[in-house]
Amino acid sequence: MFNFGVDYYPEQWPQDRWAIDARLMAEAGFNVVRLAEFAWVKMEPADGRFDFSWLDEAISVLAAHGIRVILGTPTASPPAWIMAKHPAAFRVREDGVRVTYGNRREYCPNNPTYQDYSRRIVQAMADHFTSQPAVIGWQIDNEFGDRCYCPVCLKAFQNWLSEHYASLDSLNEKWGTIFWSHTYSNWSEIPTPATTGHSPNPSLALDYYRFCSDSYVAYQQTQIDILRERCPQHFITHNLMGFGYDKINYFDLARHLDFVSWDNYRRTQWNLQADVDPARAALDADTMRGLKSKNFWVMEQQGGSGGWEIVSVAPRPGELRLWAYQSIAHGADGILFFRWRTARYGTEQYWHGLLDHDATPGRRYQEIKQMGAELKVIGVRLLSSTVKASVAMLLAYDSRFALQIQANNPDLRYSTHFSQIYHALHDLNVPIDIIAPTDDLSRYKLIIAPLLHVVTPQIAANLESFVVKGGTLLTGPRSGVKDETNVVVNMRLPGLLRSMVGVDVTEYDSLTPGMNQALHFVLPELEGCAGNAEVWCDVLEPSGAETVAVYTANYYAGKPAITLNHFGSGKAIYVGTLGDGSLHASLMPWLLRIANVDQNFRAPSGVEITERWQGDKRLVFILNHTDTQQEVQLHGTPTNLFTNAVENADPLILQPKAVLVLEM
Amino acid sequence: MFNFGVDYYPEQWPQDRWAIDARLMAEAGFNVVRLAEFAWVKMEPADGRFDFSWLDEAISVLAAHGIRVILGTPTASPPAWIMAKHPAAFRVREDGVRVTYGNRREYCPNNPTYQDYSRRIVQAMADHFTSQPAVIGWQIDNEFGDRCYCPVCLKAFQNWLSEHYASLDSLNEKWGTIFWSHTYSNWSEIPTPATTGHSPNPSLALDYYRFCSDSYVAYQQTQIDILRERCPQHFITHNLMGFGYDKINYFDLARHLDFVSWDNYRRTQWNLQADVDPARAALDADTMRGLKSKNFWVMEQQGGSGGWEIVSVAPRPGELRLWAYQSIAHGADGILFFRWRTARYGTEQYWHGLLDHDATPGRRYQEIKQMGAELKVIGVRLLSSTVKASVAMLLAYDSRFALQIQANNPDLRYSTHFSQIYHALHDLNVPIDIIAPTDDLSRYKLIIAPLLHVVTPQIAANLESFVVKGGTLLTGPRSGVKDETNVVVNMRLPGLLRSMVGVDVTEYDSLTPGMNQALHFVLPELEGCAGNAEVWCDVLEPSGAETVAVYTANYYAGKPAITLNHFGSGKAIYVGTLGDGSLHASLMPWLLRIANVDQNFRAPSGVEITERWQGDKRLVFILNHTDTQQEVQLHGTPTNLFTNAVENADPLILQPKAVLVLEM
Amino acid sequence: MFNFGVDYYPEQWPQDRWAIDARLMAEAGFNVVRLAEFAWVKMEPADGRFDFSWLDEAISVLAAHGIRVILGTPTASPPAWIMAKHPAAFRVREDGVRVTYGNRREYCPNNPTYQDYSRRIVQAMADHFTSQPAVIGWQIDNEFGDRCYCPVCLKAFQNWLSEHYASLDSLNEKWGTIFWSHTYSNWSEIPTPATTGHSPNPSLALDYYRFCSDSYVAYQQTQIDILRERCPQHFITHNLMGFGYDKINYFDLARHLDFVSWDNYRRTQWNLQADVDPARAALDADTMRGLKSKNFWVMEQQGGSGGWEIVSVAPRPGELRLWAYQSIAHGADGILFFRWRTARYGTEQYWHGLLDHDATPGRRYQEIKQMGAELKVIGVRLLSSTVKASVAMLLAYDSRFALQIQANNPDLRYSTHFSQIYHALHDLNVPIDIIAPTDDLSRYKLIIAPLLHVVTPQIAANLESFVVKGGTLLTGPRSGVKDETNVVVNMRLPGLLRSMVGVDVTEYDSLTPGMNQALHFVLPELEGCAGNAEVWCDVLEPSGAETVAVYTANYYAGKPAITLNHFGSGKAIYVGTLGDGSLHASLMPWLLRIANVDQNFRAPSGVEITERWQGDKRLVFILNHTDTQQEVQLHGTPTNLFTNAVENADPLILQPKAVLVLEM
Repeated sequence: MFNFGVDYYPEQWPQDRWAIDARLMAEAGFNVVRLAEFAWVKMEPADGRFDFSWLDEAISVLAAHGIRVILGTPTASPPAWIMAKHPAAFRVREDGVRVTYGNRREYCPNNPTYQDYSRRIVQAMADHFTSQPAVIGWQIDNEFGDRCYCPVCLKAFQNWLSEHYASLDSLNEKWGTIFWSHTYSNWSEIPTPATTGHSPNPSLALDYYRFCSDSYVAYQQTQIDILRERCPQHFITHNLMGFGYDKINYFDLARHLDFVSWDNYRRTQWNLQADVDPARAALDADTMRGLKSKNFWVMEQQGGSGGWEIVSVAPRPGELRLWAYQSIAHGADGILFFRWRTARYGTEQYWHGLLDHDATPGRRYQEIKQMGAELKVIGVRLLSSTVKASVAMLLAYDSRFALQIQANNPDLRYSTHFSQIYHALHDLNVPIDIIAPTDDLSRYKLIIAPLLHVVTPQIAANLESFVVKGGTLLTGPRSGVKDETNVVVNMRLPGLLRSMVGVDVTEYDSLTPGMNQALHFVLPELEGCAGNAEVWCDVLEPSGAETVAVYTANYYAGKPAITLNHFGSGKAIYVGTLGDGSLHASLMPWLLRIANVDQNFRAPSGVEITERWQGDKRLVFILNHTDTQQEVQLHGTPTNLFTNAVENADPLILQPKAVLVLEM
Repeated sequence: MFNFGVDYYPEQWPQDRWAIDARLMAEAGFNVVRLAEFAWVKMEPADGRFDFSWLDEAISVLAAHGIRVILGTPTASPPAWIMAKHPAAFRVREDGVRVTYGNRREYCPNNPTYQDYSRRIVQAMADHFTSQPAVIGWQIDNEFGDRCYCPVCLKAFQNWLSEHYASLDSLNEKWGTIFWSHTYSNWSEIPTPATTGHSPNPSLALDYYRFCSDSYVAYQQTQIDILRERCPQHFITHNLMGFGYDKINYFDLARHLDFVSWDNYRRTQWNLQADVDPARAALDADTMRGLKSKNFWVMEQQGGSGGWEIVSVAPRPGELRLWAYQSIAHGADGILFFRWRTARYGTEQYWHGLLDHDATPGRRYQEIKQMGAELKVIGVRLLSSTVKASVAMLLAYDSRFALQIQANNPDLRYSTHFSQIYHALHDLNVPIDIIAPTDDLSRYKLIIAPLLHVVTPQIAANLESFVVKGGTLLTGPRSGVKDETNVVVNMRLPGLLRSMVGVDVTEYDSLTPGMNQALHFVLPELEGCAGNAEVWCDVLEPSGAETVAVYTANYYAGKPAITLNHFGSGKAIYVGTLGDGSLHASLMPWLLRIANVDQNFRAPSGVEITERWQGDKRLVFILNHTDTQQEVQLHGTPTNLFTNAVENADPLILQPKAVLVLEM
Repeated sequence: MFNFGVDYYPEQWPQDRWAIDARLMAEAGFNVVRLAEFAWVKMEPADGRFDFSWLDEAISVLAAHGIRVILGTPTASPPAWIMAKHPAAFRVREDGVRVTYGNRREYCPNNPTYQDYSRRIVQAMADHFTSQPAVIGWQIDNEFGDRCYCPVCLKAFQNWLSEHYASLDSLNEKWGTIFWSHTYSNWSEIPTPATTGHSPNPSLALDYYRFCSDSYVAYQQTQIDILRERCPQHFITHNLMGFGYDKINYFDLARHLDFVSWDNYRRTQWNLQADVDPARAALDADTMRGLKSKNFWVMEQQGGSGGWEIVSVAPRPGELRLWAYQSIAHGADGILFFRWRTARYGTEQYWHGLLDHDATPGRRYQEIKQMGAELKVIGVRLLSSTVKASVAMLLAYDSRFALQIQANNPDLRYSTHFSQIYHALHDLNVPIDIIAPTDDLSRYKLIIAPLLHVVTPQIAANLESFVVKGGTLLTGPRSGVKDETNVVVNMRLPGLLRSMVGVDVTEYDSLTPGMNQALHFVLPELEGCAGNAEVWCDVLEPSGAETVAVYTANYYAGKPAITLNHFGSGKAIYVGTLGDGSLHASLMPWLLRIANVDQNFRAPSGVEITERWQGDKRLVFILNHTDTQQEVQLHGTPTNLFTNAVENADPLILQPKAVLVLEM
């Protein structure tokens, strides 16, 4: 049975509605719900007084319809009675202002009082629900995030530093605090990098960002420990926020979870485009799969327009189902829609669920009900199947944090550059893993390391070993610039990567938009290819590498912009500039070729093809993200799993927003 | 005698200048001045020490020139000695920052200490001036506004809530505080919706906005009570800020005033366009007239470039007079220009008066002097005359506040949409009343209810009764969405208006600018009309209504966008989108037609025609707001009241910025 | 020996590197370094414990290579141990937020504790280094700036006011505090003009800006006094920030320095254009020269891309040398590049020095080394030479401050308008002095006084005397508007300048961009000239002046826009509008002509020609700022000082970025 369900808030609706909801859920094919992650005050209405009776009742109503339950620990949003009693538990923003009550995530994760309350409610829930058979697992808190700059965090940071550095002298030396006379003579003198001090020491700032990430990881661990002990039979997860969220090291946060969950929204208040980019959703999903190199759940799959004060563009007919299948195509083993019914009150009145405020089952409910019926047919075929990739991109949180602190150029953004490269690969319908720079690379043929700004000796050795053994590596500007403490290396760039890529960066130019320029490809097999240099130009001096492309303007016209180095049995490509889309479109097919990566599918723009393997059985997902009919040419005689019929694939005709799941 | 005058600050000029000023005023035809509304420190130079001698002297100089006096209570700007002693009386901004001394309106209206000082100075003034025969009335404070978020207000808000809700349980239920675990167990836990908590519960926020409005209303009432008791022979007013000001419910603020005054500026630092929109001034004036459904005064009519740090575009020759007549045309029974002479010091150095800094009577003085001479001729004809309208637009502060909290779409603004519809009607030279949704509607043939977001059963009944009895009603998207506590209704939209309009909103789409689309009119009498859908599209399913226009794009192409429902003896039109100007221009003539509203005048763009009725005598104002000569075709043989001559109206020739007042 | 060197931070590099650095410096021709201005914590690692041994050692290494030393007092960036102990010494921003530790310039200049620490470290340094023969002078602090709004400053401001005004009554009267009831009854009631009070009384604000400027001047003086006493043989300077910095009256700050130094950066994080405007650098240099009417040093001449978080566009080949010669051409007697080697850590990691992070001498080092060799040849020719100008522009900090407080128009900016006029003159290759309005004007033929907003009787008399004796003066709108306390004058504009310019401003219009209009020149000798009115239009009524140009649009079309008045033996030109570049380009050649100023050189756009005079020997600098070859036509047979050869100047061929120094 494929895990298919919805996020439900029985506490927000009259109890006599619960059975109707449960029936409609079952009719939609749902077999799992998430409950209670914002219901702290309902479970602990006063200090130390617990009441789970209403939740028992809700669970039994759902269970009666064959629906299992994931429970959220409710610590993302504390009751007013806690915060009124303990105002020091409120988070302090980067600008020094302490937040006030009335939203959620207002707590400081390092506050000991808040931690005490958190532990107590989690213990009480665990003790109560460990014996409830409908409960199958736990979600901890909700969408961890937001750095805190309060005095408790300051003290905790100073302690964290004293544990991470051999001595204060060592910290002073490694951070270079002699600059501007910042040398600390006592741990207690070390500040946070709050904006009230502006432009902090980059080493201090990077450590603070790591500390903030560690703080949430540690806070989560206190809850994991309780649940592991009391509910060993239940799984534990947390709902993360895809590729885009960049303030927690998600590899660390995922480490002690059983699997990763995440929240998948394509149309929200903060993303108001008329058209949705399918590659971005694919990147999110691949990132989530990569955190533990295993399948994941979508704990919140979009169920309607998303917005708080602003209503997003409405999901078009077919989109909700298409996006849910896209999640599965990239590795989801569970899909829960957010949320069942749109809230009539509170901040999220316009974050629409499958049902509208008035509970009428409408277009959205019917669309998902169709999917529920389909999954009853094909769900079993998806179990234990996985995505297999021979290409990986390295997601490096240290580098990402470091570039938040020093962007290098106003238009240099880690996520934008990473996404652009991902997009060019995704257009070729090649499976991609998103992994950490320290992960095992031996499974892959091609590794792409964008903006690998902070390079440790361990990372450098990992990459060299990969290339020496025959792998192909792509990296580029602003890589190898920093050591682990965010200090510029005392060597020619790209620093520790220099011998592997076989080039020296002798100079660099940081461009304004008007200074963009075309590249000229000199490698014969790339003759005629196009591509522009943008944002940044490294001026390269090969020390063994051959030149792939050269600059055509500025005082470094004619000098190498892209090089290829043979290193051991492998190849290292260095792209000295942040290119535009045309550059990546030119480079990616060539890279796949020289790395011997098969490109199995060709599809028109907007049609996505990806695979999951169930043992040696190959399940192919074909997703038409466009509003028009499309054609795809496949080889062989695939079986349509929805219909169990053999498809005529010469060509395959795809209706707008169509989803096909084929066995090849 | 028509009330014609100026705002004067004798305390800012040498005493030997007062008689010269008074003579120049009299020569300009002025018969009334406003004094003292910023002179607290001059009247109470130290705690409890009062000095009115200078003001007595100034009043006697003015009275000697036949000029009567309106006194302002000076509480809008406290002396430094009060605020230095009582820093807790400073207002706290929404971001949590307490303002400091040096501007005005820095006080918290709920601060009891400030209220004590306010009462004492008002009592002292009232006692002193009640027997001064030149004094005819009072203006309370100056331009009330600005929400406060201080601890005193927080406590007062909690009290306000305890008076407005039967119990804390009731509040929790009505606000839906179970969302995000916000349930309050004590009134004292309830916060303000400060931005430091961001995205508050919309129900809490709406109540806070109402509370802030009530706070100013109550603060004003403390002064009204004193003045009523001590000066029963004087009128009491307050100077409001037109249609644009949206933080106080002006119907409430106006209730216990004798009449409404307001401040009419068209060119200021905050409004730097080269061209002035006459419809916006008309909307302001009609709004002010509607607050008490009676004529009003303009307490500050623009007298020169308006600005503090920035000088506005200079009023063009003829504009000051034209705008003053426009005020009269829309119901002004008094006009005072702001200000007599431009201040040489202080924040408002560039808020120009009729005289420049150096007191030379120049172009502006001469222009207003001409008007003074004219009013001596026609003033008597204006007395007791009023505007009569059969069209009304409903101004709903609850809805306006609610849409401040949740805009629904980045381009959805209450004032913009309201103004656009008003503009289309104004272009047809139809008199318009602006009234409250709970006002008596029986006087009208056509009611327009834009963005009637919050609908109570009382409002719904008022509208239904109007339509049932034969009225024509226009409403549109985001109407009927919320109940009185700002919770989304538990029914199909437009909620309580649904049976009256005869349509269901089955879905809605919130547009980005690129998604705008043309509408197609299917009603035969509107064939060929144009109009675009913008910002928002309701997808409509008629349940009795006939379709007026349909969408032409997106997945709801072909579905109804505008409908007309026959309900009782009347008609209810629902426009499912926020249209552009062309849509309103298409709809309004048709609406007038089906509502049997006469369109008495036709005039070229930029020429405004409106009427006041003195008994059954009809006074017609023709105002050429353009820079070019215009022609207007009138029927009959009107008498020009300036000249007492019969005008050749076939056609009537209007010079640039011309003003004609005719009796038809 | 011409002073040529670099800013060096030995404390940031291993001691075994110092000798290598010193050798490379000497090879580059450097003979002076600046040290220690950010090394407080290294010199005083704990409260009262001083250690200069490392600095002694560094100085001796440098001295051994013939390099002399300027020492910076290190007070711009305090050690953490001071600020952790004395948090009240942190500066408070205009928005009321106290800054925190982690950057620099975080101190309040009026804080007595900070002043104590400052005096002690300066005394210790002075006592220690007075006998060190390699030391030649001192730089005090670093780039003074940033207004503070802390309680200590508030109290100091109140004291400052009590010293500047005869009485509180006098202050109340001069500031016009009766406006909005702000009359102060105690000095302690007077606030700062913090933004939490917004739109302050302009008189109060101007005095606060003066007070803040005076605070830094006084703080500097405490250090000057110590150094003068203990190190009478050393010079004392401070590094200022060119024309652009506008929060300190630089004439005051320069008064007690031996000479002015400044920091000259053309490409930084805050200035990311692809192309650099040479006129702006010239304006900076001329401003610095004018502060004391004598030659200056460049204490920080750009040595590489400038940036903190963002890397600037890279200086193009030849630019660093070209800009350094431009500094000399405008009066530099010393050039020190910032900095020697790029910092590997700290906030300024991307403020590049001559060497990169890894110390490899590259393109930039080689370019400056070439200049070092050239200066060995020509340096002696530069000694004691000076710039001579017969044109001066008046830089008025009071007016500049006043226009910060009240901009008058959103597009009216003192620096922009001043720069535009300077640019037009600079294009004509005319030497320009930038001086104070109270300076001796008798040396000049042409004085330009842009936006002379605040005019005292002393200034008016100075200008009148200049014109009466035959000088030519240009001034324009918003001049003469304010008296010394920032109050609008009680007379027709331009106030005290009115009789001199022979026109009355009868009205003014503040324009929005779309209202710009062409001027029509009516003076025969300017027939056909072009020029547009922008931002502001004074409507002029000549009372003796003749009309030069008239407006062509708006209700003042045909009225005078520019006038010329004969006054005494001289001429006063009034331009009633802020013109665009074409207007200034039209007016400047004519102004030079009527003022009898010689225009000695004509050069293509982007080629700058200027002179220094060594006695009666004329040294001509020709600088090709463009990327292309240029030609210049010179008269005579100049000697190229680099080669000692006579140049063929018919025409002179200039390579891109070429520098020529000729003796004519």
